[in-house]
Amino acid sequence: MPITANNPKIKSWLDVPKNSDFPIQNIPFGVFITKEDVITIGTRIGDYAIDLGALQQLNYFDGIELTDDMFMQDTLNDFISDGKKTWRLVRNRISAIFESSNPLLRDNIEHRDIIVCKIEDVEMQLPVLIGDYTDFYSSKEHATNVGKMFRDAENPLLANWLHIPVGYHGRSSSIIPSGIPIHRPMGQMLPNGETTPVFGASRSIDFELEMGFITTDVNVMGENIPVHQAEDYIFGMVLLNDWSARDIQKWEYIPLGPFLAKNFATSISPWIVTMDALEPFRTKGPKQNPNPLPYLQQNGKHTFDINLEVAIAPENEEATIVSNSNFKYMYWSMSQQLAHHTSNGCRINSGDLMGSGTISGPTTSSFGSMLELSWGGKNPIELKNGTERKFINDYDTVIINGFCKKNEVRIGFGEVSNKLLPPFVRK
Amino acid sequence: MPITANNPKIKSWLDVPKNSDFPIQNIPFGVFITKEDVITIGTRIGDYAIDLGALQQLNYFDGIELTDDMFMQDTLNDFISDGKKTWRLVRNRISAIFESSNPLLRDNIEHRDIIVCKIEDVEMQLPVLIGDYTDFYSSKEHATNVGKMFRDAENPLLANWLHIPVGYHGRSSSIIPSGIPIHRPMGQMLPNGETTPVFGASRSIDFELEMGFITTDVNVMGENIPVHQAEDYIFGMVLLNDWSARDIQKWEYIPLGPFLAKNFATSISPWIVTMDALEPFRTKGPKQNPNPLPYLQQNGKHTFDINLEVAIAPENEEATIVSNSNFKYMYWSMSQQLAHHTSNGCRINSGDLMGSGTISGPTTSSFGSMLELSWGGKNPIELKNGTERKFINDYDTVIINGFCKKNEVRIGFGEVSNKLLPPFVRK
Repeated sequence: MPITANNPKIKSWLDVPKNSDFPIQNIPFGVFITKEDVITIGTRIGDYAIDLGALQQLNYFDGIELTDDMFMQDTLNDFISDGKKTWRLVRNRISAIFESSNPLLRDNIEHRDIIVCKIEDVEMQLPVLIGDYTDFYSSKEHATNVGKMFRDAENPLLANWLHIPVGYHGRSSSIIPSGIPIHRPMGQMLPNGETTPVFGASRSIDFELEMGFITTDVNVMGENIPVHQAEDYIFGMVLLNDWSARDIQKWEYIPLGPFLAKNFATSISPWIVTMDALEPFRTKGPKQNPNPLPYLQQNGKHTFDINLEVAIAPENEEATIVSNSNFKYMYWSMSQQLAHHTSNGCRINSGDLMGSGTISGPTTSSFGSMLELSWGGKNPIELKNGTERKFINDYDTVIINGFCKKNEVRIGFGEVSNKLLPPFVRK
Repeated sequence: MPITANNPKIKSWLDVPKNSDFPIQNIPFGVFITKEDVITIGTRIGDYAIDLGALQQLNYFDGIELTDDMFMQDTLNDFISDGKKTWRLVRNRISAIFESSNPLLRDNIEHRDIIVCKIEDVEMQLPVLIGDYTDFYSSKEHATNVGKMFRDAENPLLANWLHIPVGYHGRSSSIIPSGIPIHRPMGQMLPNGETTPVFGASRSIDFELEMGFITTDVNVMGENIPVHQAEDYIFGMVLLNDWSARDIQKWEYIPLGPFLAKNFATSISPWIVTMDALEPFRTKGPKQNPNPLPYLQQNGKHTFDINLEVAIAPENEEATIVSNSNFKYMYWSMSQQLAHHTSNGCRINSGDLMGSGTISGPTTSSFGSMLELSWGGKNPIELKNGTERKFINDYDTVIINGFCKKNEVRIGFGEVSNKLLPPFVRK
């Protein structure tokens, strides 16, 4: 059955620009600070931010079982903990309130003044308190490219890659929302051909085009979640830039994996687009060969057709698109990642973030990092202003955006956009 | 100047058994649930748990600037955020209140009934909400043993090891206090000699003898902490068992490091022993050769002489000590670890946990894991009951304890003790 809020025919009484990522069929969830310096949970329609705390206080959620302050909070964790039924009831109610024929709020100017803000008047925050952050490595094209460059061009995939959705732990404290600038990290590196390392500013700052999903409380410690139930525990998705310092990474990562090469910054788009909103864009993932072990086997459509784009904008200059990819290229699905993650009983909580890993497609223009796009610096990318990039320069802004489109409905994620600043200098 | 609370001559009016880990010179911090089902921050003297929430409500901290509910909380994070001056004032005040010549609380039976509980009447909890957990790999003997077994007996240390306090991110959600049993994890492994992996219960569950330190808020994102300032940001230490599934680890860890082999459980002792209490046991670490890069260089005594012991107790049987080690064997100091961790601007918050990595000493009886003690299973360890262990069996309890001793003062950590249960079975 189609979910009411996804009905492609409904329109909002709020103006939605053509090609907006946020039609009334989206109803994403986020957290923002208003002009009046109040922090609240909200949603977005067109270029309007909607204060769900105010909506709740004015009784627009009557009849839905919610704690009194559900939306008057600074994170979505409690709402996400409430589970899929609550998410769906709330999203459908918001859809009904803002649907063009509903006069309830539309014709109540006093309430509209309290509830509806212009998007440029709010300051977006991290949508969840992220307890733990896991990053996977689930694009076959990306793993193959990296293997070709650094290991064995003939056998680029490691022995475990086709059997395991390989993942590792990232650092929650380094996750920031779109808009926050990042300092180029200092670090220890081994210059090419040398045997003694040096300490200095990284010279190869990269983006990684990823998406992330946010979970609800999945399990108690010691218990696993079967792959066919895993989707029920996914609240929604965001865009994610897994900033990386390739020279630091190369020197530090053996044998325990990337550490300081990654934990200086990971940025995400501030609106969580729900799995319900993405439902119409469900599609099949790549064929998996060899067949995974039974605990990872699934049939049907378990991924989503999400167009992704990365652009680099030098200071005060026009942005150049450097990559076009799609979430559907991922070899391992989110349910497989979650089933694998809990297969040992690892506890997963509301608000945890799981990154996809770099999403590279089959063509060179769909690679998801500068490392791959410039093939380790051998083929610099030319920007519109005539300058070249092997990696990211100081004062460049990296902008990732993503959207789904079908039958004239476009569901988008907005963007994750962050500027790279020179290294921090202690005064 | 000696810190008042550390004065070896003072005694408490509370009875302290001989060889207790918790004389009045210790004053560790923890969180517990009382018989009356109240959760509170507390300390311990001898076999008494002391309710610091009640102590604060009854005005025993008057004159120290504290928020009204500082100790009526379920984590120490806010207290730790307040910084070193507050920690020291509070610890000295507690020391003064319980010092034998002070009648104030000693002679107030009504207050004593509210404030002082028997240790067996309280249930210890995790002392902090751990935002992020990092585990280092800082014992040269351990890294050498692992290198000999799995890589190159002639060149067991990897190229970066002597230059970097190698570390990686663990999972906060998997950290549990002493006393909670752990299920043997299921997982994917590659049987010896096979090319196709299987899924099943791990057959090589190991402990890792570690210590952990808890930080206060260290920095804002992008800024580093110089090595000579790093100690100011360390609140205290705990014992830590980094439970590991060696067969899962072997198959999954290349190239991104250990993941499901570790995140099924990490256990810590519940009392945080402050750095002030450990001050008398400061000592020099091993000589570092080659000299580290300047950002990691330090002189003087930057480690601590802490005796460590691991025992295995089969179900309903006496425990057998299998390892005696010491924290002072660590090659990299905690300040070096923290300076390295923030060298790229990585943000570190109050309540974050940093594990030392397995602490192995120079002799075979001081190795910090079954992997090393049984040398990969080749030399099983005999227990007192006549059975042998290559790794940990179902229903075995692994008990780590640790203490410092000097001039008749013993400052201990209590223990971290957890039983291994068979795999979880879905009903």
